[in-house]
Amino acid sequence: MIKRRGTLFVVSAPSGAGKTTLCREMRLRLHELAYSVSVTTRAPRPGEIDGSDFRFVSEGDFRAMLARGEMAEWATVHSNLYGTPAKPLEAALRDGRDVLLDIDTQGAAQLRARYPDAVLIFVVAPSMAELEQRLRERRSDPEKEIGRRLERAREEISLWRRYDYLIVNRDVKEAMEQLESIIQAERCRVARLALTFPDLEVPN
Amino acid sequence: MIKRRGTLFVVSAPSGAGKTTLCREMRLRLHELAYSVSVTTRAPRPGEIDGSDFRFVSEGDFRAMLARGEMAEWATVHSNLYGTPAKPLEAALRDGRDVLLDIDTQGAAQLRARYPDAVLIFVVAPSMAELEQRLRERRSDPEKEIGRRLERAREEISLWRRYDYLIVNRDVKEAMEQLESIIQAERCRVARLALTFPDLEVPN
Repeated sequence: MIKRRGTLFVVSAPSGAGKTTLCREMRLRLHELAYSVSVTTRAPRPGEIDGSDFRFVSEGDFRAMLARGEMAEWATVHSNLYGTPAKPLEAALRDGRDVLLDIDTQGAAQLRARYPDAVLIFVVAPSMAELEQRLRERRSDPEKEIGRRLERAREEISLWRRYDYLIVNRDVKEAMEQLESIIQAERCRVARLALTFPDLEVPN
Repeated sequence: MIKRRGTLFVVSAPSGAGKTTLCREMRLRLHELAYSVSVTTRAPRPGEIDGSDFRFVSEGDFRAMLARGEMAEWATVHSNLYGTPAKPLEAALRDGRDVLLDIDTQGAAQLRARYPDAVLIFVVAPSMAELEQRLRERRSDPEKEIGRRLERAREEISLWRRYDYLIVNRDVKEAMEQLESIIQAERCRVARLALTFPDLEVPN
């Protein structure tokens, strides 16, 4: 039996657009999805668990990993470093598992360059006003931080054309269905199946 | 408000793979889908309604429509002529409606040439043995016809790489979900949205 190569799904969004919730819920819905625990130098937020939400490391440890070439992508966001370890990611894809990553725009561009067949998905709130309201409701950020996040959101949103898919997150249920549709549809793409079944007339 | 252009979804399959059922059920599930009633010179099968399943015409009438350039695609299958009238199809797309067509491989190739952004979906039974069994269960075809259909199925299946998506129809429910996912995912494709929102930073 030929083993299908997994597909890398990368979800980016301005903070407040709902990306973290979407990805967490999708992993609960599609248990077969592999994911990568990102490494970060930022401080844990209340409720975040080390090794599950993120792997929290010092800047020194992060830079040592980078130097050893252990990051599939990395980026600086709000003065903190974030990275995705390459080895577990590539092992999952080789093993035929689809991987869902929740990555900022800088990281997504690096992943696209390293894995050209990755599927890039951008999630936006229905409007800037809605995005601002969601950031305020989150209450975890001070006022100054909200302004910075909104400014950064505008920059990120301008990059939406570099993505394969756009999800306008009006409502979590609808956005979840769109994300799941994208994953299921990509599994039916002839361009991917033809790599797996190069010599077969009928893939079965 | 900018009006999104509709997407043309074309479903092909060897006879017996389940295409007709899939398309009929999908139109019931997604009421917004427009479809085209094909024109054909073949005789109605029991239960088929003229003007609903097909528009049944004489060969003379069919050739007159062809001569007037009124067919988006047409083909000869088992000595019968089939065609899709172009006007209602193009009106629906302009009006922003997605169109789902159930078309053989010859017609699909013509539609791809005429509408390069069409989405082509190929449906196969899980195996030739399964396909043969389904054709026999249908009981509407004489033995000789089943042999011809199987031979033609092999030829059609060899064309699967020309399609964008492949659905292996193991079970109608699963195949329906895959077809719906493909339609919903294509609605989120940046390449399509960027045509609709050329000058907007955020499409909302």
